[in-house]
Amino acid sequence: MKTRIGILGYGNLGRGIECAIRETNDMELVAVFTRRNPQTVSILTEDVPVLPVSEILDWTDKIDVLMLCGGSAKDLPVQTPQYAKYFNVIDSFDTHANVSQHFANVDAAAKEGNKTAIISVGWDPGMFSLIRAYSNAILPNGSDYTFWGKGLSQGHSDAIRRIPGVADARQYTIPVPSALESVRNGEHPVLTTRQKHTREAFVVLEENADPKVIETEIKLMPNYFSDYDTTVHFIDAETLSREHSSMAHAGFVFRSGTTGPEHEHNHIIEFSLKLDSNPEFTTGVMIAFARAAKRLADMGQTGCKTVFDIPPALLCEQSPEELRSHFL
Amino acid sequence: MKTRIGILGYGNLGRGIECAIRETNDMELVAVFTRRNPQTVSILTEDVPVLPVSEILDWTDKIDVLMLCGGSAKDLPVQTPQYAKYFNVIDSFDTHANVSQHFANVDAAAKEGNKTAIISVGWDPGMFSLIRAYSNAILPNGSDYTFWGKGLSQGHSDAIRRIPGVADARQYTIPVPSALESVRNGEHPVLTTRQKHTREAFVVLEENADPKVIETEIKLMPNYFSDYDTTVHFIDAETLSREHSSMAHAGFVFRSGTTGPEHEHNHIIEFSLKLDSNPEFTTGVMIAFARAAKRLADMGQTGCKTVFDIPPALLCEQSPEELRSHFL
Repeated sequence: MKTRIGILGYGNLGRGIECAIRETNDMELVAVFTRRNPQTVSILTEDVPVLPVSEILDWTDKIDVLMLCGGSAKDLPVQTPQYAKYFNVIDSFDTHANVSQHFANVDAAAKEGNKTAIISVGWDPGMFSLIRAYSNAILPNGSDYTFWGKGLSQGHSDAIRRIPGVADARQYTIPVPSALESVRNGEHPVLTTRQKHTREAFVVLEENADPKVIETEIKLMPNYFSDYDTTVHFIDAETLSREHSSMAHAGFVFRSGTTGPEHEHNHIIEFSLKLDSNPEFTTGVMIAFARAAKRLADMGQTGCKTVFDIPPALLCEQSPEELRSHFL
Repeated sequence: MKTRIGILGYGNLGRGIECAIRETNDMELVAVFTRRNPQTVSILTEDVPVLPVSEILDWTDKIDVLMLCGGSAKDLPVQTPQYAKYFNVIDSFDTHANVSQHFANVDAAAKEGNKTAIISVGWDPGMFSLIRAYSNAILPNGSDYTFWGKGLSQGHSDAIRRIPGVADARQYTIPVPSALESVRNGEHPVLTTRQKHTREAFVVLEENADPKVIETEIKLMPNYFSDYDTTVHFIDAETLSREHSSMAHAGFVFRSGTTGPEHEHNHIIEFSLKLDSNPEFTTGVMIAFARAAKRLADMGQTGCKTVFDIPPALLCEQSPEELRSHFL
């Protein structure tokens, strides 16, 4: 019998989950839940109902894993604990500062409902977290480096859009090539925030807005931009939508560490991703962990987990024998 | 209390294990066992005994994990099943064709002794295997690529040394740069053996040996060289030992896969290693998995495991809370 997947929230992540399920032989989509009017939501899969979220609790016996496809700022802090009581759930919570609290809330709910939850699943947090953990265990004496981009940062784009006079904006995070090279060469550089990434913003102004004022406001914005070298381009709405709608992203994780009696040998572990679609890759990771959530739930291993707690074999459709013969 | 580690076999791997233990806070070396005369073996750690392997069974209560540092060809097929009955063990068995049989032998022995064994631990098999498993689970529709080098291949060097007239030899495996680039660019190339790697051999001849004959014999050797473009250099013994004693190695694993309703988005996962010391990195991986073996044994999870079966958190000295706050 296939693992029955439900989706809550049909945006980029929800659609990505739907596509990822089609690449498996052991999973099926059984329902999509939305806060919008279901009549207005059209999905790719035939014969799967789109339902108002108010009906979701009628499905507790008909869904093995519920994929929570909301945002980390407002949706997931509420939704994941709320639904972990009734379903095995996966989320992609990525607000790093609040992970402890989120974990505790979800763990309590999942244990109350005897369900399995896996939080913060995606590429970062997610695959990058795994690489950091593995490579720190292997090379305890060394340094970690993470670079993101080139790719669109939703949070930084939103921050620019909140400035009065800005009609729309996209912001790209870009790793500094010389910093990447220095890490790759085993130079163990100590890098400031400014030395690691640059930022590039494409902004559509409202009528009568002063580009000089807006540019200064962006560049001086604390936390988001003041620690970076930022380039600001003003363009029209049509150009923004034509040239800046790609969901491509990329990133790099390094561990550079030494071994030997005198720490005389250097080693570099590099993991990188080059993604045409950030949400589709993220949901590929989520669906693999959904397979694990079902298996853990079947074994009675309930409560909240993260990627660190999951044996890799549980992510794979292949049997243990197939894994050993094909991938070992 | 620290995890008590024993080492069987004090060559490059044994010394690497000894160094790796020094980088941890939760492990200690308690004994080294050797088939040589212990008087002739000098180790780095003070106050740790070097003992004949004949005494090893006196240590079953004094060692938590025994690190098997022999070779895959002759030592490990015998040693790992033999000692898995009495100790939790880690090996780096890498004869891919015989993994199933080795797994079955070790599993039976470990279960009989109520011990935990983890086999085929290192970088390939080991970390590369993990990346293949994770990335296939995430991108089921795609292709895998593994490249090794530039680095010394022990097996290929041995094969050359067996040719009559050859006094000594070293053989380097080298990835073809244009093949790497094609994979990295998402071109999904179909690559023959010859298109992926070249081979470079440095050979010391015995007196009166004919270099033309030896060169031809190397280049035509089935399995080892006939499918590759091989360059052969003849040098003297002193140059060989001066210029070709490095244990550096490197390697790359890629998954190039597509997602989306029409498979219109391509994604590239790349994992690479650049190692100054192949054995020291390998033993760094082995010591991390020794930590997991001890923890699994304490939980009563006995029998034979591979890297696919181990939750990453068990490899780490850090607590689950620290992992979530530092690495997630």
